[in-house]
Amino acid sequence: MDVIEFTPTPDEYAWTFGGVAPVRRIRPGTALKLWSDDAFCGRLRSTADLASASLDMPFVNPQTGPFFVEGAEPGDTLVLHLADLTPARSWGASSLIPFFGGLTGTDRTATLQPPLAERTWIYEVDSDARTVAFQSASGDLTIPLPLEPMLGTVGVAPAAGEVRAALVPDAFGGNMDTPEMKAGTTVYLRVNVEGALFSIGDGHYRQGEGESCGTAVEGAMNSTILVELLKGEVSGGGPAWPRLESDDHLGVVGSARPLEDAWRAGQVDAVGWLAQLQGLDTLDAYQLLSQISEVPLANVVDVNYSVATLLPKRLLPPAEVYGGVHDRLRRLAATL
Amino acid sequence: MDVIEFTPTPDEYAWTFGGVAPVRRIRPGTALKLWSDDAFCGRLRSTADLASASLDMPFVNPQTGPFFVEGAEPGDTLVLHLADLTPARSWGASSLIPFFGGLTGTDRTATLQPPLAERTWIYEVDSDARTVAFQSASGDLTIPLPLEPMLGTVGVAPAAGEVRAALVPDAFGGNMDTPEMKAGTTVYLRVNVEGALFSIGDGHYRQGEGESCGTAVEGAMNSTILVELLKGEVSGGGPAWPRLESDDHLGVVGSARPLEDAWRAGQVDAVGWLAQLQGLDTLDAYQLLSQISEVPLANVVDVNYSVATLLPKRLLPPAEVYGGVHDRLRRLAATL
Amino acid sequence: MDVIEFTPTPDEYAWTFGGVAPVRRIRPGTALKLWSDDAFCGRLRSTADLASASLDMPFVNPQTGPFFVEGAEPGDTLVLHLADLTPARSWGASSLIPFFGGLTGTDRTATLQPPLAERTWIYEVDSDARTVAFQSASGDLTIPLPLEPMLGTVGVAPAAGEVRAALVPDAFGGNMDTPEMKAGTTVYLRVNVEGALFSIGDGHYRQGEGESCGTAVEGAMNSTILVELLKGEVSGGGPAWPRLESDDHLGVVGSARPLEDAWRAGQVDAVGWLAQLQGLDTLDAYQLLSQISEVPLANVVDVNYSVATLLPKRLLPPAEVYGGVHDRLRRLAATL
Amino acid sequence: MDVIEFTPTPDEYAWTFGGVAPVRRIRPGTALKLWSDDAFCGRLRSTADLASASLDMPFVNPQTGPFFVEGAEPGDTLVLHLADLTPARSWGASSLIPFFGGLTGTDRTATLQPPLAERTWIYEVDSDARTVAFQSASGDLTIPLPLEPMLGTVGVAPAAGEVRAALVPDAFGGNMDTPEMKAGTTVYLRVNVEGALFSIGDGHYRQGEGESCGTAVEGAMNSTILVELLKGEVSGGGPAWPRLESDDHLGVVGSARPLEDAWRAGQVDAVGWLAQLQGLDTLDAYQLLSQISEVPLANVVDVNYSVATLLPKRLLPPAEVYGGVHDRLRRLAATL
Repeated sequence: MDVIEFTPTPDEYAWTFGGVAPVRRIRPGTALKLWSDDAFCGRLRSTADLASASLDMPFVNPQTGPFFVEGAEPGDTLVLHLADLTPARSWGASSLIPFFGGLTGTDRTATLQPPLAERTWIYEVDSDARTVAFQSASGDLTIPLPLEPMLGTVGVAPAAGEVRAALVPDAFGGNMDTPEMKAGTTVYLRVNVEGALFSIGDGHYRQGEGESCGTAVEGAMNSTILVELLKGEVSGGGPAWPRLESDDHLGVVGSARPLEDAWRAGQVDAVGWLAQLQGLDTLDAYQLLSQISEVPLANVVDVNYSVATLLPKRLLPPAEVYGGVHDRLRRLAATL
Repeated sequence: MDVIEFTPTPDEYAWTFGGVAPVRRIRPGTALKLWSDDAFCGRLRSTADLASASLDMPFVNPQTGPFFVEGAEPGDTLVLHLADLTPARSWGASSLIPFFGGLTGTDRTATLQPPLAERTWIYEVDSDARTVAFQSASGDLTIPLPLEPMLGTVGVAPAAGEVRAALVPDAFGGNMDTPEMKAGTTVYLRVNVEGALFSIGDGHYRQGEGESCGTAVEGAMNSTILVELLKGEVSGGGPAWPRLESDDHLGVVGSARPLEDAWRAGQVDAVGWLAQLQGLDTLDAYQLLSQISEVPLANVVDVNYSVATLLPKRLLPPAEVYGGVHDRLRRLAATL
Repeated sequence: MDVIEFTPTPDEYAWTFGGVAPVRRIRPGTALKLWSDDAFCGRLRSTADLASASLDMPFVNPQTGPFFVEGAEPGDTLVLHLADLTPARSWGASSLIPFFGGLTGTDRTATLQPPLAERTWIYEVDSDARTVAFQSASGDLTIPLPLEPMLGTVGVAPAAGEVRAALVPDAFGGNMDTPEMKAGTTVYLRVNVEGALFSIGDGHYRQGEGESCGTAVEGAMNSTILVELLKGEVSGGGPAWPRLESDDHLGVVGSARPLEDAWRAGQVDAVGWLAQLQGLDTLDAYQLLSQISEVPLANVVDVNYSVATLLPKRLLPPAEVYGGVHDRLRRLAATL
Repeated sequence: MDVIEFTPTPDEYAWTFGGVAPVRRIRPGTALKLWSDDAFCGRLRSTADLASASLDMPFVNPQTGPFFVEGAEPGDTLVLHLADLTPARSWGASSLIPFFGGLTGTDRTATLQPPLAERTWIYEVDSDARTVAFQSASGDLTIPLPLEPMLGTVGVAPAAGEVRAALVPDAFGGNMDTPEMKAGTTVYLRVNVEGALFSIGDGHYRQGEGESCGTAVEGAMNSTILVELLKGEVSGGGPAWPRLESDDHLGVVGSARPLEDAWRAGQVDAVGWLAQLQGLDTLDAYQLLSQISEVPLANVVDVNYSVATLLPKRLLPPAEVYGGVHDRLRRLAATL
């Protein structure tokens, strides 16, 4: 297995999905060892570093990539297995950004109220204990929280010639901000352009479901990712929405506004997937999904909101998913 | 501890929250052993029983109650501990109802498309194995699923003199359809009228998060519920939205449309609760909640959608919640 | 024609739709001359009277009624022709209420931001010039605006035994807050209970579309209303949503959240109505409506949002609407 | 005044805002005489031409442009005065496209129902009578409707390096589909990139508010457009959302989902604009706007929904708007 390491210099950061020349060409079957900066470009390093003064909009959420996958054509399915995610810094940062977040008026949910105060929190990483520590500004409360690394952003170049800011989640993936995007997970993405042109970034050392305040415990990340490709004729033309597979779940992430539409989009794709895997008609699959799906929110703060629909494998008869690629990559990851 | 058993006759079913005379007056400290019919009034007994022909709208989702709690006044907090939920029939039913459900046009999300076909599924209960069996109409698939009993509907009489159909979830509780409403959970509800006038019903033998097709595995239920009352001066005037406590979580259930507003309402209440319990200011609580909250969907099908915001106790320093009433009732339940 | 005058005493104000005994029984064919208080119960009389100190929640938006219409049964269509609306005071009031309105966080669109400042505006009525005068608090700007009296609230008792606060718009009508509810307009409402039990109130001396700040120029109103009844067998079971007819337009008012669902509900009813009136199939009616409908917002501030879909009569071939009752009542109104 | 005529060849059509090289460089003060194809690229020419068979997705809604405006820099305000819009064909077309439109499930408001049937309508233009004729497929109804030409799509290159499909409306303008975009209107757009790079297209011979079925009476258009530029230091950095000015109204078009957010975004910008023009504080402007704004829906079918907030000039004291550029261009247009 080819192993390629890549750490972008700041001038190599990608700020969009689409519209960027690839940093590397790789073959399916490659393992990537990638470093990605945090969504703040590492600029929030103390509680005195406030977002509006420190960030250089719109240059936030830098992506590592894009990678050109040889042989990938529109209608194929790109397979990314997250073999390992390890924090690349000893601290993470979270911040309240004016008019950004789920419990404040925003540029769209526009109100006439003044913004919430800005504030930055620094979370120290304890690698041995595998924790990140919340430290309150008010009072004097320190709470070590379990380290649960994930990637907020994984995506390919969009369809229809579009170029989207790295802050956007949509059918091409992108900034979905779902805690399901953790080590051990395989992501299936429909290829929209030659080479797929995928990027990753936005490491989170942990995140609550919904990412309420707008930012997780943001941190630079070392990611090991195995790349595979399923040709369109095999994979049925690529999924409408990003699909996930772990040892425990199958999943689909829908992204839209309002939040019920993010849910609907993912659910309808999951109904179709379940029907196909279990040989059911649509209404039986709808019924079965209704009684078994787990639906954790991903984000209610980004340009589109995202919701994951998860189907627990333990509740379903065994079924071959995409030719068993997840299991194969899982085993391969163990050998790295 | 007083123990009162009550099984309503069909003419005693309550169809609304508010507007119904109490079936019993009880004192705080009472244990209730209640039987409740399923949301279909037991009329769907085979796959040939379709909803539109069998149901007598609007007489669906019958509630057992209401109960008048002596001493309860507006601004108090009613405490209901779900000590035990046991299926009262050997089968449950689920059904597709025309223009009802999350993945179809409805009376509000109105479209010009024809409705989905009607279909009813009957789930056999295996009490020993603690399963309910999905049986497909297409193909020949039977899947035993874990029995996970819950109450879709728990609520008090609404404020402002309103009377709401038992299908509605809102600040008074009602038809929230959250899987968190299971045995071992304590519910906190703001009292809006003298006596609180609470009812329960809508037993589900299991339900996926979101209740996508509109109905869970609906079944008659035997419920053991411990009732307590916290006076307003102690409990701070009653929570804005229904709060939950289990051994593992604190939670708030918001209900509104669009779905993000259900989420916002519950999150804002949870931020305030977290701030109060941990002695944090609002922004610190917002930050902490953002990194720890679990947010399973409840329903995306009812008159209002519902979402639970859960705060895992294991991640938080110990705090006294409502004077420890949950722990006390939990121990008491074990003695019944 | 029977003419009945009615001015409620404050203890006769109705605060809900449903759940209130009728103030009068009337026969179809009656003309009512009604006085209604403003939504603030007349308590905001100077710019120093702020809402939170002056109002006695939930006792706001008092209705005049309900009226029991003899012979009205569920499935009939109640016809109310607004013959005349005349301000009953020499001033109106508008107010910013904390966490209420379209451009602020609210109890549902909940945020952590503090509320907007409270402020009350008093508008002097100039009956001769037919204006109400905006007077700014900042600067020194006075702008006489045309008097355009309307009723914010017209409704019947809801279906399914519900009782709704007078602040709520829904299928039963209620607090739709549409400027289309002006003199010369006929309203068609589905009857849900024996006697229909309709009420009116919430006079506005004028209002912008959307009622952005949450309150119009609120004022006590003298209303002359002609009441008719169409039996169900004639009127097709009553409209799903409140329908309007003026000399210029046919219309339907949908109420829901999110706003697109208020729009969808009204549009689907309007498509069906247009198809029936012009002998078109559904898709032709959908197409025609798409090119001719006018869609002014009503409110984006109430428990449900409301939108009117209007079909201009001048663009359509003549069609008999509800047996010509609007034209007949229009002529009758001229004789009063 | 420079007058430049431009008719794109099909290979010069622009399919996106941003990401396209300019077709011409022009100076502020130029008059453009442009031809634009219809949103279907002229492929729907009879009722037998159905969308899914005839269109070549994603190549729809071709734009004429982009034009590079010399001297335009980010933060400037581009001024486009629509001097004249004249149909360029003798017929227009409208079509039902599967899973597209306001009264059907879509890719986001995803349901499991089958799509509505496809159907195409051809509208004959009568230039003398200034009508377009609706011809029903069912029955035999022909209705001449007034010709009311407008441009569905007017926009500049987006900010943040994004490239958006021509089907998208957002802060950069684009596919807003508002009937207010008619001859006599001046549009103000914030410049995001050097040269502004604006395009126009999507001529509608008429359209109802909301564009319910997803398509208007689509037709090729001859547009005369006067181009001006206001430097950022004069115009305050460019409006957050597209602003409109006609002889009768000032307006702002917000675009977002859900629909209330499209409304909120436009309203908040309109409040700020009104405050600035009339020397009011924010709350006074909020109050005044609440009583005078007209809010016609634009579209409830596109990637974002759009709503116009209009402020009638007749209700407001005279104020100088952008240095009187609208009046000046209006007079200039009369000389062409």
